[in-house]
Amino acid sequence: MTTQPAHLTDPKLTESLFLKACRREATSRTPVWLMRQAGRYMAEYRAIRAKHTFLDVCHNPELALQVTLQPIEAFDLDASILFSDLLIPLEPMGAVVDFPKGGPVIENPIMGPADVDRLVVTDANETMGFVGDACALIRANLPATTPLIGFAGAPYTLASYLIEGGSTKTFLKTKTFLYEHPGAAERLFEKLADQVISLLNMQVERGCSVVQIFDSWAGSLDPVDYERWGAKYTRRIVEGVRRPGVPVIVFAKGTGTYFPLVASTGADVLGVDWTLTLDKAREMVGPDFALQGNLDPARLLAPWPDLQPAVDAVLDAAGDGRGHIFNLGHGITPKTPVDTVKRLVDYVHTASEARR
Amino acid sequence: MTTQPAHLTDPKLTESLFLKACRREATSRTPVWLMRQAGRYMAEYRAIRAKHTFLDVCHNPELALQVTLQPIEAFDLDASILFSDLLIPLEPMGAVVDFPKGGPVIENPIMGPADVDRLVVTDANETMGFVGDACALIRANLPATTPLIGFAGAPYTLASYLIEGGSTKTFLKTKTFLYEHPGAAERLFEKLADQVISLLNMQVERGCSVVQIFDSWAGSLDPVDYERWGAKYTRRIVEGVRRPGVPVIVFAKGTGTYFPLVASTGADVLGVDWTLTLDKAREMVGPDFALQGNLDPARLLAPWPDLQPAVDAVLDAAGDGRGHIFNLGHGITPKTPVDTVKRLVDYVHTASEARR
Repeated sequence: MTTQPAHLTDPKLTESLFLKACRREATSRTPVWLMRQAGRYMAEYRAIRAKHTFLDVCHNPELALQVTLQPIEAFDLDASILFSDLLIPLEPMGAVVDFPKGGPVIENPIMGPADVDRLVVTDANETMGFVGDACALIRANLPATTPLIGFAGAPYTLASYLIEGGSTKTFLKTKTFLYEHPGAAERLFEKLADQVISLLNMQVERGCSVVQIFDSWAGSLDPVDYERWGAKYTRRIVEGVRRPGVPVIVFAKGTGTYFPLVASTGADVLGVDWTLTLDKAREMVGPDFALQGNLDPARLLAPWPDLQPAVDAVLDAAGDGRGHIFNLGHGITPKTPVDTVKRLVDYVHTASEARR
Repeated sequence: MTTQPAHLTDPKLTESLFLKACRREATSRTPVWLMRQAGRYMAEYRAIRAKHTFLDVCHNPELALQVTLQPIEAFDLDASILFSDLLIPLEPMGAVVDFPKGGPVIENPIMGPADVDRLVVTDANETMGFVGDACALIRANLPATTPLIGFAGAPYTLASYLIEGGSTKTFLKTKTFLYEHPGAAERLFEKLADQVISLLNMQVERGCSVVQIFDSWAGSLDPVDYERWGAKYTRRIVEGVRRPGVPVIVFAKGTGTYFPLVASTGADVLGVDWTLTLDKAREMVGPDFALQGNLDPARLLAPWPDLQPAVDAVLDAAGDGRGHIFNLGHGITPKTPVDTVKRLVDYVHTASEARR
């Protein structure tokens, strides 16, 4: 497309707290959103899920709209994130995806190079229009000043589901595939990157102001393998979605020991998990990145008097707060009390404003 | 006891490659052993396990002897490690432990403070004599120049099994317990530390030249929580087992972003996983520690031409090799080819010798 979608030039969005922080501009306080902020810890979400499967909610723009807005209505969040799942773009590629008990299952996992060759890269507008429709619907219904975040998974993380057939603790099938079939693995990762590029570009066209690339399982790789299988293909995606005014967030969990490699992907904003303090992260990558994170989501299960010092520690480690987006170091967990989330969001705002 | 056991002053052991490396003395080549070197990847081990349960092998000194010696007979390893399990010392404390399908299960998990109060700290000689007997039997049957490593789990890792009732990916029950019942958690961790101290001291008395403390799941903690729940109690154990001539290895997996905290436990040797290169680890903790690691165990599933550069990278990152013990970054995996293990061990010896 040659014209910029209106939301990308709307000053109510471009001058929002969140987008200013993404650009490392000074802000009056620290913006906050929470990974998986629409989810099972909210009664409103559980009510929807009592009537619809997880995949139904992902596939139906009206349902995706409803659950995406739930946390926006309940808390003073500075950004909204599309309700969807990392595995959604794998379906039109040829993967049979299901969530029988909450955990993801790929019913036709990749067993060898021939399975890679059968996967097809698609045009997201043709195969995942429901995601684009959800973005447009959410954008139309969000508060005018709340940016919408689109997202997708990085190839290594997506490949791990395709090859393991679901979740794993060891990533042994995935790594064995990389070692035994490096050529097929490269083709697989290129296909996944291209599918994700198409998806993210559609998300931006249809309403998203920012995109986040999740490499949730990157931390299972050593630095050499992360460069080869993580950073390289994340870089391809960043290049494929880069356009003026649309920041790219890369969150590669567990990569704190080689965090400069994550910075080398070309991301504007780097997600940080709770094992790496933000001051150390800053020291490792320098001033040219916004940092997003990094409270341990388990901390939200602590009573407030124990939680508050941990929130203070995150704000303190962010120095003057410039270029900091408060978030968790991974998704919010199902047993998190809603009252705690409310208190957290409000506290980040007031405590960060007091620090300015 | 007031007299030193003979194995602690036997120069064939104290001047072994492995013990010299633990003391950071110059060695002619890099010593190597592999975490979980006795295990399912060996046909000899599977043959024993076809006739005996995992717990039977742990409980029976004669069976523990057999499986402990299997890798020593098959490969040119520089150290032997007692065959046992992290959960063994929990049994006499009152935990009901089982391994129904390979994974550990605690049948009476800790649900609240009262369950902590019911756990008893025991004298290992009285309650785990079979472990002491296994150490003595193994020591008597090992080559005279091969040191025996004893081991136990650190309190956080042990507590995670006790509270979760088995393995976990999220550690949410464990962390919730720490947050909700910090006093009971402290009592639990003290009991676990004291139980482990008794076990490790018995292992040393009965034949072990070195002990390793495994904090396998420490990496799920942020640095503040690691200091409070990881390093603090590991330090207590290190102090409780310290004696001249017996190096202590601390392996706290996933803690590379705050590795200096691991060094602060007082360990002589620090285990390193594959996410932190040995040169960076050295930079973080200085010259006063030996380093043990750190090949990704999944690499052993790669063909040799892909594996060798990864081994070279580990040796290169160890600099002049002084104070380096080659190992994996976690336990060897069941599908590892025995031929690869043999080739690896021999290659580490020749390649490190060529580098001296």
